Amino acid sequence: MDPPQNFDQFSLKRILMNDTQRKMIAVEGNFNGHQEPAVVVIEKYAFDEASVLNVCNAQTKFKKNLENDVYKSFSCVPPYDENISSNKMDIIYPATDKHILKFSSQPLYFVQETEEMYQTITLPHILGSSLSLQWLYNCLEYKSEKERIKYDTASENQKDDEDNGFLLLPDLKWSGKLNELYLLAIIKKRNIKSLRDLTINHLPLLKNILNKGSAAIYKLYGVEQSQLRIYVHYQPSFYHFHVHFTYLMHTPPGINVGKAHLLTTIINNIEMQGNYYQKATLDYTIKESDPLFNRFEEKGILRKAKLIDESNNA
Amino acid sequence: MDPPQNFDQFSLKRILMNDTQRKMIAVEGNFNGHQEPAVVVIEKYAFDEASVLNVCNAQTKFKKNLENDVYKSFSCVPPYDENISSNKMDIIYPATDKHILKFSSQPLYFVQETEEMYQTITLPHILGSSLSLQWLYNCLEYKSEKERIKYDTASENQKDDEDNGFLLLPDLKWSGKLNELYLLAIIKKRNIKSLRDLTINHLPLLKNILNKGSAAIYKLYGVEQSQLRIYVHYQPSFYHFHVHFTYLMHTPPGINVGKAHLLTTIINNIEMQGNYYQKATLDYTIKESDPLFNRFEEKGILRKAKLIDESNNA
Repeated sequence: MDPPQNFDQFSLKRILMNDTQRKMIAVEGNFNGHQEPAVVVIEKYAFDEASVLNVCNAQTKFKKNLENDVYKSFSCVPPYDENISSNKMDIIYPATDKHILKFSSQPLYFVQETEEMYQTITLPHILGSSLSLQWLYNCLEYKSEKERIKYDTASENQKDDEDNGFLLLPDLKWSGKLNELYLLAIIKKRNIKSLRDLTINHLPLLKNILNKGSAAIYKLYGVEQSQLRIYVHYQPSFYHFHVHFTYLMHTPPGINVGKAHLLTTIINNIEMQGNYYQKATLDYTIKESDPLFNRFEEKGILRKAKLIDESNNA
Repeated sequence: MDPPQNFDQFSLKRILMNDTQRKMIAVEGNFNGHQEPAVVVIEKYAFDEASVLNVCNAQTKFKKNLENDVYKSFSCVPPYDENISSNKMDIIYPATDKHILKFSSQPLYFVQETEEMYQTITLPHILGSSLSLQWLYNCLEYKSEKERIKYDTASENQKDDEDNGFLLLPDLKWSGKLNELYLLAIIKKRNIKSLRDLTINHLPLLKNILNKGSAAIYKLYGVEQSQLRIYVHYQPSFYHFHVHFTYLMHTPPGINVGKAHLLTTIINNIEMQGNYYQKATLDYTIKESDPLFNRFEEKGILRKAKLIDESNNA
């Protein structure tokens, strides 16, 4: 018996696993009424660089999901096969050098950023070169994406909303499927750039995000807090403090140690030492093309290394 | 201008990145001769559980790549679109219960383990049920795997080797390729079960692992410390303190926040507060099938949740 020849007579018993990051699914079932079970594992192939442009052609249907400033997001569906081979396509146009860099693969380095390095290297760099936050202020002021706002602490009429309030928005990367849940909590306060600025004064804000954010997600989507990964990036991709909420069994980019910091750990560290995030040495990965890499290189803190050639064996 | 309407006039400048694990590609190019660059990011959607069987139908072409015992592996290509939407399909037939378990997904939970929960739940569980460490003591005593030992601090004749010494061994998961480098530092001291046992007294041991481990790897493999991810698991897979050294651009399992703790962060935390790892609340993910999950469930700390059904959309 050669199972695929008879695949139209395969009866599906159950889905065993669906890895949404790798785009791999495993199912159990039977061929042609044979009693012994079969496990079938299907994984999408990676894109072939030589034929990437064939993904879109004259027959492809585009459905716009989102448009804000330079960002557009589409579902891109070949007409013959809507369910199976559709792709998500994000377009940034016009794109700046920073956008281009953000999506380029690069040698990576670990840097151990001390308090002093932050003050003398990282902070001046952030102040001198960060991307515009206008798109974000547009959201906070309900000037754009207002239909995308899933939750606003202002709906609860608390007095301290300017200090402790936030909006919950779906992340651009979220497909909309529940088991890939990905929301961002964007704080209303405008003077917290990142983790480094958090002090004991921000504990009410942080606990508000943890508790009200989780409660809102439970109410909206039925996902309990124990099934959420709630974290912050350092360095973040933009310098207005925000918190990532993702479904625990989903594995989006940016959940690795050296990039992601759990909100519960942040609260715990500040409770143990009020100025933890000013004093701590924070370790993170940095790309060689990141202008911040150059600042560290100039000071002799990092130096370029060769990428390992994959064809070499140990 | 609506870029996708004109996608047939898109001219590709270069591939920025091709993530073969996520099946995502980013390219830079221009629309219709416009001078401003655009970044286009295309990612394949995950499989939709409701329509997974449509991946294969009467028109699908199968090419057998491999057959070994119960395993068969195919390329499975829809006839209209060979380059873009083909899938890899592995079939295990007949499949045993173990095959089925191996490919089944398990619910995961985040637990926030306080000092008290460690003392009253986790520690008794570890002491009552940990697996034998005889295989590891055999390594430390050069009774087995001695040809696998890549480095031994004893070679440097330091006086405190019993307290601060360690061996460097390749991890079982290491393929041997340099760009997938994966070594473990196993300490010689026998009374440190995990992160939770580390105090200010262990700083010399931890710094020794960081510095001598990195130096040995540079000497053996030419990989600099800035290109290494050096971390500890909590919970670990065995309760004899050990440290993971992996190549930074490699992404093995177990490098996510909620599981991995950077050695540099551990040293920094203990320097900031000597009893940090006794006092801290440590957050980690736990599988429903882990016996420790049952301990937390009995105490009302965790409760079973339903897995999200992918067919629901937000």
